[in-house]
Amino acid sequence: MNLTVLFGGSSYEHEISIVSAITLKDKIKKHNLTFVFVDRDRDFYLIDKENMKSKYFASLEYKKAKKLNLEKGGFSYKKLFGAEKISGVVLNLIHGRDGEDGKIAGMMQFFGIKCITPNIEASVISYNKLYTKMYAKEIGVKVLDYKYITDDSYVPESFPVIIKPVRLGSSIGVSIAKNIDEYKYGLDVAFEFDNGVIIEEFKEGINEYNLAGCKAGEFIFSKVEKVKKDEFLSYEDKYLDFSRKEAKTEEVSKELETKLKDNFRKIYNNIFEGSLIRCDFFEIDGEIYLNEINPIPGSMANYLFNDFDEVIEKLASSLKFEKHINIDYSYINKIQMAKGK
Amino acid sequence: MNLTVLFGGSSYEHEISIVSAITLKDKIKKHNLTFVFVDRDRDFYLIDKENMKSKYFASLEYKKAKKLNLEKGGFSYKKLFGAEKISGVVLNLIHGRDGEDGKIAGMMQFFGIKCITPNIEASVISYNKLYTKMYAKEIGVKVLDYKYITDDSYVPESFPVIIKPVRLGSSIGVSIAKNIDEYKYGLDVAFEFDNGVIIEEFKEGINEYNLAGCKAGEFIFSKVEKVKKDEFLSYEDKYLDFSRKEAKTEEVSKELETKLKDNFRKIYNNIFEGSLIRCDFFEIDGEIYLNEINPIPGSMANYLFNDFDEVIEKLASSLKFEKHINIDYSYINKIQMAKGK
Repeated sequence: MNLTVLFGGSSYEHEISIVSAITLKDKIKKHNLTFVFVDRDRDFYLIDKENMKSKYFASLEYKKAKKLNLEKGGFSYKKLFGAEKISGVVLNLIHGRDGEDGKIAGMMQFFGIKCITPNIEASVISYNKLYTKMYAKEIGVKVLDYKYITDDSYVPESFPVIIKPVRLGSSIGVSIAKNIDEYKYGLDVAFEFDNGVIIEEFKEGINEYNLAGCKAGEFIFSKVEKVKKDEFLSYEDKYLDFSRKEAKTEEVSKELETKLKDNFRKIYNNIFEGSLIRCDFFEIDGEIYLNEINPIPGSMANYLFNDFDEVIEKLASSLKFEKHINIDYSYINKIQMAKGK
Repeated sequence: MNLTVLFGGSSYEHEISIVSAITLKDKIKKHNLTFVFVDRDRDFYLIDKENMKSKYFASLEYKKAKKLNLEKGGFSYKKLFGAEKISGVVLNLIHGRDGEDGKIAGMMQFFGIKCITPNIEASVISYNKLYTKMYAKEIGVKVLDYKYITDDSYVPESFPVIIKPVRLGSSIGVSIAKNIDEYKYGLDVAFEFDNGVIIEEFKEGINEYNLAGCKAGEFIFSKVEKVKKDEFLSYEDKYLDFSRKEAKTEEVSKELETKLKDNFRKIYNNIFEGSLIRCDFFEIDGEIYLNEINPIPGSMANYLFNDFDEVIEKLASSLKFEKHINIDYSYINKIQMAKGK
């Protein structure tokens, strides 16, 4: 199978996306990979496999690579005579803005390119933590209580709390406040990144589990990963985490696994079709709570699957084009007729 | 001001969008208009002003017009030597799919083109009636009770009910069922258009009010329109309705107007910034309920404003580019340094 890995983007997680793509280069073995880089100016470049090294991007050497156009049916580059089109399914690996906010999904759909990606709706629901909460409640999945704020007039009644910008991933702008001073400082940081912030009670020492999966006809689930951490993963921790190829799995009970999968299915159906997502859950007194949905997890959570090549192949085969809408101008023609024209 | 009206799209409302654009041609007097048509195959065409007649499109004559490319900074067409770029703010007038589902908004943002449009989040929230309900509840705006279904296993306890596909506008696929047989038939119709359906109790004879507006520094509100109708507007009624240039306004009390505006402000802030929307409200026993949000109303609800040219100009001037994200490869460089490379 031909698979085009699309990475980079105008995003706070631009560098993380590069690391993700480099990681997948070694991890996807059965498929024929092409790498398309979206640089910080949103120009598209075709990157040779041997250049898939972080230094190549950091040094801006990539600017010597072939520039690509995005057009109906796929990416293409100019040749002396005509143009060459890159064929195959695209894998959207742009973390954060551009990739997870629906832009890439929308463009791929518009241009009729099959793409493993959260669609526009799924992007908005998972990119914005307020909408994730709303959505989870609507479909009967529990979430922790929260307060959504757009200015600094709200003060929590008790501490510690966790402060999260509503739209960013990879812990960017997130902090934990143990008192009012830390809270004020944390709000300043969060509002630097976003105009909306979510405040939650910070519960120390609760169990956190990650489960990844997708639907390709049937559901394909990953292993369950129990998250080990001190307080929470900072941006730097997560950055290194994005290059992972091995899971830190730990046996979990059948009962817990079933509960996590039930919640995952509810969340995934049907708006996440076409994507491979990782849901991060909390377990408190036997109850499962959704923490967040990662619709483009770091290096696609490859380390949680036994046969990642197969998962990607099945998911790619399940992709569908948008429904065809027949436009035959029947209404305009009817009116023209009525006018006697 | 240069204004590019973008219309058409691969949408059930393709023809409605053509009618909307033709209507605006006469209604926008002060600005320099350019018309860009997205045809049913999603090719872009530059349409001469004198060809802005419905027959020109229905007859496919438009295919002789100049084809356009969408690229960074705007639409452009090839000339004998080089290319000519179309400058100015874009007005997204594509009703339904492509225009109201976030695709156009995402592409315009990605390519750095200023555009009067609901952004991606606003599109998803208003395009999908389930998300509109969720959002309204979250921000403290009342909505009618509803049942969201994805198959035909649910049967309402009483009739009449109104059946709505979750994602379509312009009353497409909507029907009212007075009994179980009509309900089953209505569900069949709705599921032809969408995989999710919303069922509401149908309340006959309730007052419905439309209010349009936007924020350009301050809020600019339209007149309030009281909707006159028999049962509800069918697709054909709405089709004709999209070419309207006159409001059917009726005096409403100051108290009601204040309530409607308060609800509008809550809905608009801040996710609808950059768009001119029309909110359709119900009034029941003095309480206001949101029916739906039209983020690209027919012919931009021009007929509800006293000076539509001025509204468009103010809104266009308020548009901002996406926040610049500085990408300096500091994390990759740090890691390279640590590795001693």
